[in-house]
Amino acid sequence: MQTPNVLIIAPHPDDEVIGCGGTMRRMIETGAKVTVAIVTKGTPLYPASQVRQVRAEARKAAKVLGVHRLDFLDLPVTTLHLMPEAKMNKVFGNLIQRSKPDTVFIPFARDRHEDHRQSFDAALVAMRPDGRGHRVSRIACYETVSETHWTAPGVEACFDPNWYVDITATLDAKLGAMREYKSQLSEAIPARSIEAIEALARFRGSVVGMPAAEAFLVIRDLWAAQDRKGSARRR
Amino acid sequence: MQTPNVLIIAPHPDDEVIGCGGTMRRMIETGAKVTVAIVTKGTPLYPASQVRQVRAEARKAAKVLGVHRLDFLDLPVTTLHLMPEAKMNKVFGNLIQRSKPDTVFIPFARDRHEDHRQSFDAALVAMRPDGRGHRVSRIACYETVSETHWTAPGVEACFDPNWYVDITATLDAKLGAMREYKSQLSEAIPARSIEAIEALARFRGSVVGMPAAEAFLVIRDLWAAQDRKGSARRR
Amino acid sequence: MQTPNVLIIAPHPDDEVIGCGGTMRRMIETGAKVTVAIVTKGTPLYPASQVRQVRAEARKAAKVLGVHRLDFLDLPVTTLHLMPEAKMNKVFGNLIQRSKPDTVFIPFARDRHEDHRQSFDAALVAMRPDGRGHRVSRIACYETVSETHWTAPGVEACFDPNWYVDITATLDAKLGAMREYKSQLSEAIPARSIEAIEALARFRGSVVGMPAAEAFLVIRDLWAAQDRKGSARRR
Amino acid sequence: MQTPNVLIIAPHPDDEVIGCGGTMRRMIETGAKVTVAIVTKGTPLYPASQVRQVRAEARKAAKVLGVHRLDFLDLPVTTLHLMPEAKMNKVFGNLIQRSKPDTVFIPFARDRHEDHRQSFDAALVAMRPDGRGHRVSRIACYETVSETHWTAPGVEACFDPNWYVDITATLDAKLGAMREYKSQLSEAIPARSIEAIEALARFRGSVVGMPAAEAFLVIRDLWAAQDRKGSARRR
Amino acid sequence: MQTPNVLIIAPHPDDEVIGCGGTMRRMIETGAKVTVAIVTKGTPLYPASQVRQVRAEARKAAKVLGVHRLDFLDLPVTTLHLMPEAKMNKVFGNLIQRSKPDTVFIPFARDRHEDHRQSFDAALVAMRPDGRGHRVSRIACYETVSETHWTAPGVEACFDPNWYVDITATLDAKLGAMREYKSQLSEAIPARSIEAIEALARFRGSVVGMPAAEAFLVIRDLWAAQDRKGSARRR
Amino acid sequence: MQTPNVLIIAPHPDDEVIGCGGTMRRMIETGAKVTVAIVTKGTPLYPASQVRQVRAEARKAAKVLGVHRLDFLDLPVTTLHLMPEAKMNKVFGNLIQRSKPDTVFIPFARDRHEDHRQSFDAALVAMRPDGRGHRVSRIACYETVSETHWTAPGVEACFDPNWYVDITATLDAKLGAMREYKSQLSEAIPARSIEAIEALARFRGSVVGMPAAEAFLVIRDLWAAQDRKGSARRR
Repeated sequence: MQTPNVLIIAPHPDDEVIGCGGTMRRMIETGAKVTVAIVTKGTPLYPASQVRQVRAEARKAAKVLGVHRLDFLDLPVTTLHLMPEAKMNKVFGNLIQRSKPDTVFIPFARDRHEDHRQSFDAALVAMRPDGRGHRVSRIACYETVSETHWTAPGVEACFDPNWYVDITATLDAKLGAMREYKSQLSEAIPARSIEAIEALARFRGSVVGMPAAEAFLVIRDLWAAQDRKGSARRR
Repeated sequence: MQTPNVLIIAPHPDDEVIGCGGTMRRMIETGAKVTVAIVTKGTPLYPASQVRQVRAEARKAAKVLGVHRLDFLDLPVTTLHLMPEAKMNKVFGNLIQRSKPDTVFIPFARDRHEDHRQSFDAALVAMRPDGRGHRVSRIACYETVSETHWTAPGVEACFDPNWYVDITATLDAKLGAMREYKSQLSEAIPARSIEAIEALARFRGSVVGMPAAEAFLVIRDLWAAQDRKGSARRR
Repeated sequence: MQTPNVLIIAPHPDDEVIGCGGTMRRMIETGAKVTVAIVTKGTPLYPASQVRQVRAEARKAAKVLGVHRLDFLDLPVTTLHLMPEAKMNKVFGNLIQRSKPDTVFIPFARDRHEDHRQSFDAALVAMRPDGRGHRVSRIACYETVSETHWTAPGVEACFDPNWYVDITATLDAKLGAMREYKSQLSEAIPARSIEAIEALARFRGSVVGMPAAEAFLVIRDLWAAQDRKGSARRR
Repeated sequence: MQTPNVLIIAPHPDDEVIGCGGTMRRMIETGAKVTVAIVTKGTPLYPASQVRQVRAEARKAAKVLGVHRLDFLDLPVTTLHLMPEAKMNKVFGNLIQRSKPDTVFIPFARDRHEDHRQSFDAALVAMRPDGRGHRVSRIACYETVSETHWTAPGVEACFDPNWYVDITATLDAKLGAMREYKSQLSEAIPARSIEAIEALARFRGSVVGMPAAEAFLVIRDLWAAQDRKGSARRR
Repeated sequence: MQTPNVLIIAPHPDDEVIGCGGTMRRMIETGAKVTVAIVTKGTPLYPASQVRQVRAEARKAAKVLGVHRLDFLDLPVTTLHLMPEAKMNKVFGNLIQRSKPDTVFIPFARDRHEDHRQSFDAALVAMRPDGRGHRVSRIACYETVSETHWTAPGVEACFDPNWYVDITATLDAKLGAMREYKSQLSEAIPARSIEAIEALARFRGSVVGMPAAEAFLVIRDLWAAQDRKGSARRR
Repeated sequence: MQTPNVLIIAPHPDDEVIGCGGTMRRMIETGAKVTVAIVTKGTPLYPASQVRQVRAEARKAAKVLGVHRLDFLDLPVTTLHLMPEAKMNKVFGNLIQRSKPDTVFIPFARDRHEDHRQSFDAALVAMRPDGRGHRVSRIACYETVSETHWTAPGVEACFDPNWYVDITATLDAKLGAMREYKSQLSEAIPARSIEAIEALARFRGSVVGMPAAEAFLVIRDLWAAQDRKGSARRR
C-alpha cells in the first residue's frame, strides 16, 4: 500500500489543514495512518497563552480530520535559520526514523515565510535517499494560501503542481477543521480565509475536471523493489 | 493616460472574455477604447454554421462588455504554425499599426493550444520595440482556463502572474459576457465553465486581498519620455 | 490498481526500450497490460527494407519484454511539425481513447529530435484533463540516451527526474530487448550503446540507493475519486 | 497618480543612485515624493569616519536628485542573515507603514551581495498583500552594476527586466549624483564606474528605442478598486 | 590549439558582425581560420537587387575583419520552420563536416526572430556529440542587438552569458565591419545602431573588468583525449 | 596556458576526488599545478580522531593524484551559514589571492548540503570580476554523488553540465584516490560508492562519445587581453 503511513510537516499550526486537509481526510478514510508534525513553537515571540490556544485549536482540527498523532517539534519560530544545520537535521532525522512514513507532505520551498523554507530544506536532508535508514516512497510539497502564492515571479520558482487529489468528498471536513483555528481566522487576512481556501480547491479541481482538488508538487517518487510497487496484485 | 487604447488578441472566440473580461469592462468604464481581435477562423475544420454561431456569440459578449470594436483576422485555425513567418507577421503588424494600442493583452506563451503559442509569438514580433512605428506601452499575457494551466511542470514555464486587477465590480459583467458563449459552454468542460472562471477570479483575488481579480503576466512595460509617463500632473 | 493499463509512446522504434524497458517489464510481471505505440514510419526518408527490418526488431524486442500490443501510428518521420495540429491531435486522441491507459510514458519535451518534441506536444494535447473522454492517471516523460542529454544548458529545461523505479530485477530483460535492435546498435553510436544504457541505469539507481533504476519526470498525477486512489484497501 | 509616494530600499549607500537615479529624478520632476532608505550601517566592519563620509555623500547625492527624505535603518552590514526574521521583518514593516509608498524599488533577489538578498526577502515579507495595513501598488527590482550581473548562469535566475523607463532627460542628474559618491568611485572598480553606469543606461535604452533607460523587474503590480486605477479620468 | 578553425553561423547577413565581430577579429589575429555561413537568402521576400547589395556588404564586412571564407547556405528566409527536418539537418550537417570547426558560434535559441531559433536548433542537431563524424570542441551562442534582448521575461530563457572575451583591441574593427552594412544601418533602428553595439560592448566589458567585451553563452565545451586539451605543453 | 594553476574548493574531504579526480589528474599530467582546499573542519561535531583519520586519507588521495598542495581552511562544519559574511569572504578572498588560480572548481550551488551552498556563495564573492586583485579565467561547478543529484526537481536548478572532460586515461587514478577514503566508503552509502562514481563517469562519457568523462557547469569563462587567450601561437 502506497499511503498507509503519512506524515505532514507543518511549520506552524494550520499549515497542515490548509495544505493537505482534504487529502489527509481521504487517506484516513481509506486506511492510512496520519501523523502531523508542527515544527515551531511560538514562544517567546508570542505569549504562552496564545501558543496554548493555537495548540488546542490544532488538536481540535486534528480530531475533525481523524489525525492519528499530532507531534510538536518545538523548534523556535522565525529563527530556524539560526540553528546549526546538524541540530536541525537531527530533529528532522529523528522524526522520519520514528514515524517511518511512506508519504511525506512538506511546505513549498519558496513560500514567503523563512520557516517554511527552512522546514523544506531540513526535511529533504532528513529524507536523503542514501540507502540507509527508512526509505520514504513519496515526497510532495503542498501549497499554503498566504505564503505559497507570494513568491517573486521572474526570480523564484512558482508552485506548479504535478499531482491533483480529488477532495470533493472531504472538502467539508477540511473547511471544518480550518474553522477550528479561530485564532488564525480571526485575523481577517483575505488570503487565509475559508473563502480563499475553498476558491483554491475549486480552481485546482477545475483544472483537472474535478469539483474540488488539492494540488501538490511531487519532489520524489520511489518505487523500490522490496515494497513491490508496480505490482498489480497489491495496488 | 495609460490605458485609453486597449487591444486584446484572442486566438479563438471566448479567450478574450475568459482572460480579460473583467479588466476590459473596468477599463471601458473609466474611458478606455477597447478593440478585440479574434485571430483564427474555424473553417474548414468546423462547419460554416458553427463559425457563424460563435461569431454571433462573440458579438453579443462584446456588447455586454461594451467593447468598441471586434476584429476578425480570419487566419486558419490549428494551422497557424504552417504559415510563412513573414505573412503571419504582416497580419499582426497591420493590426498593431491600425489600432495603435497603449496596452495589449495576449495569450500566454505556453498555453496548451498551438494557436495560442503562435499568436503569442506573432504578437511579440509585431510589437518589437525597435523605435519604428507605433510604440506599445504595456504588453501582458492573460490566462485562459482550460489552456494555461495545462502546461507541463518541470519542463515548460508556468503562468506566474505579476499584475493583479481588482474586478470585484465587473465580475458579473465578465460572467454575463461568458454566458453569451452558449456554444462553448454547452460542451460541458469543467475547466471552461462559469464556475471555473469564478473560482479562478476568487482565488487570484484572495492572493492580493481583493474579493475578485484577474491576473496577468506583464511582459514589457515602457515609460517613454514623450508620453510623459511618471508625470504626476497627468496620471 | 494504478498501472494495469500502460501506454508507451515512442517516436521511433527503440525509444520505448531505452526509456522504459525495465519498468515495462516489471509492470508486466505484476499484471499490467502494456501497449507500445510507435509514432513515425521511416519511409520515404529511409528505404522500405530498412523500415521492415527495424519493425521486425521492434516486434522481437516487444516479445522479450512481454508487451501485449505493438501499434504503428505510421506518421511521417521528421515532418511531424508540418502536419496540421488538428490532424496530429486526432491520431493521438484516437490512440488514448482506444487504449484507455492509466499510465502513459512519453518522450521528454526537450529531446534533441524534433519528432520527440512533437510527440510530447501531441500527447499532452490528447490527454488534456478536461473531464471528457478517458482520464489518464499518470503521465511521465522517460529519458532517451542520445537525445535527452543533448539539450542546451542555460536555455532549455534539462531532464530532472522526480520518479525512480527499481529495475534491478529487469535490467537484463531491458538490455536483452535492446540487443534485438541490431540495426540501431550497429551504427556504433556510443550514446546509444548497451554500455551507455546500463551506465545510466546504474547511475540513476545509485542516486536513490538502488542497484539499477529508470528515472522519469512525472508531468501529471491524478487521484480521482471514482478510482478510489489513496485507498489503503486496494493499493 | 500612480507614483506620488516612492520608496527606494538600498542595502548600502549608492545602490539607490545606481539602480534608480534617473527614474527617481524623473518621478520627482513630475510630482512624486521620494524616500530613500539605506538599510545597513557600515560600523563596526568599517571605521566610523568612513561611515560618516559615505553618509555625507549620500546626502549630497540625494540633494542632487531632489530626494525628499533619506532614512538610515542602521542594520548591521554583512550580518543581516544573522538577525532573527521577526526583528528584520519589524524594521521593514515599520518602514512600509511609515512611508506608505505606492511604488517601491528593491534590490534584485540574486545580487551577489548577501545584504542585497536579505533586503529583498525582508522587503517582500513586509509588503505581503494580505489585505492588512498599507497596500503597495508596484514593487520592482532595480539592477546594481557590480552586483546584479555577477549571478551564476545556469543556476541562479538572471536579471531579465520587464519595465523600461526613459531617463534620457535625467541621465545627467543620475551621473551627477553618482559623482558625489567619491569614496565609492575612488576604489576604481570598472563595474562601478561612471562609464559602466552610462554604458548600461545606453544599452538598456537601445533595447527599447530610447537614448537612455533604466530597466527594472516588476515583481507585483496591483490595480486595486479603491485607488481607481485603470480610470481614464485620473491617469 | 583550441580555436584554429572557427565557424560563425548567421541567420541573416550582419548577425555575424553584431554577435562576434570583435572576437572573430581577435581570433584571426592570433592565427585562427574563420568561416562565416549565412543561412538564409532574402529572395523572394526581398527583391534580388537588395539581396545582391547586402551580400556585397557582407563581403566587405568580412574583408574588414579578415574572414577567410564566407558561405551562403541559401535557405529560404522566414520559412525555415516549414522545411522538413531531415533536409534542414542535411544542410547544417554538411556545413559542419565540410568546415570541421573547433569552435562554433550560433544565434541564441530564444532570439525573437524565428529564423534564429531554427538555425539554433538545426546547428545543435548537426553537432550532436554522438561520436561519429567531426567533433566540435566548443559551441557558444552570441547575442544580437535587436533580437536577443526581446525575449519574454518570465516565460522564455534570457541570454545570461558565461563567457566574456576582451575585444578592447578589436572593437574598432567590429564597428568598422558593421559600418559596411549600410543597407542595414540605414533603417535607423536604435537597437541595431553602431551606438547600441558599442554600448553593449562597454556594458559587457564593465561586468568583468574589461574596457569592452563580447559575451557568449557556452552550450557545450568538450575536452577530448585525442586533442589533448588540458595539456600545459600545448595550450 | 589556460590551466597551469588550478584550485579545487571542497567543502569536506573527498568532494575534490568525487567531483574532479580524473580532470585533476589529467591536468597535473600535462603540467598544471593543482591546489586542493578543504573548507571545513569536522570538530567539534565529529571526534578529533575521526578528523585526523579523514585528513590522513585526504593526504593519501592527494598523493595518488599528484596534487601539489592540500590546504585546510578549518571553517566550522555545518555552521558556515552562521558566520558573518565579511569573515567568510575574507577566508575565501585570501585563498584566491594566495593561490592565484587560473581555473577554479567549486561545488554546485544547489547541492543538498548547506556547507556546499555556502562554499559556492563565498567562492563566487571572492572571485568577483571587479578588476581588482587576481583574475580567475574559468570557474566551474563539479558534481558530487550523494549531494548534487538530490536537488528538488521543479523548484531548484538541477546540475546541467556544459563542459565535459575525457577522463578515460585517468579514471583509474580517480577511483584509486577515492579508495583511500576508507572512512567515507565504509559507511556503505550506495550513492557514494566506487560503483556509483564509475557509473556516473561512464554515463557522462556516453553523452559526448567518450568512454569516461567528468562533467562540469562553467559559470564564467574570461578571455582577458593580457593573457592573450584566443592566441593561436600559445594555445
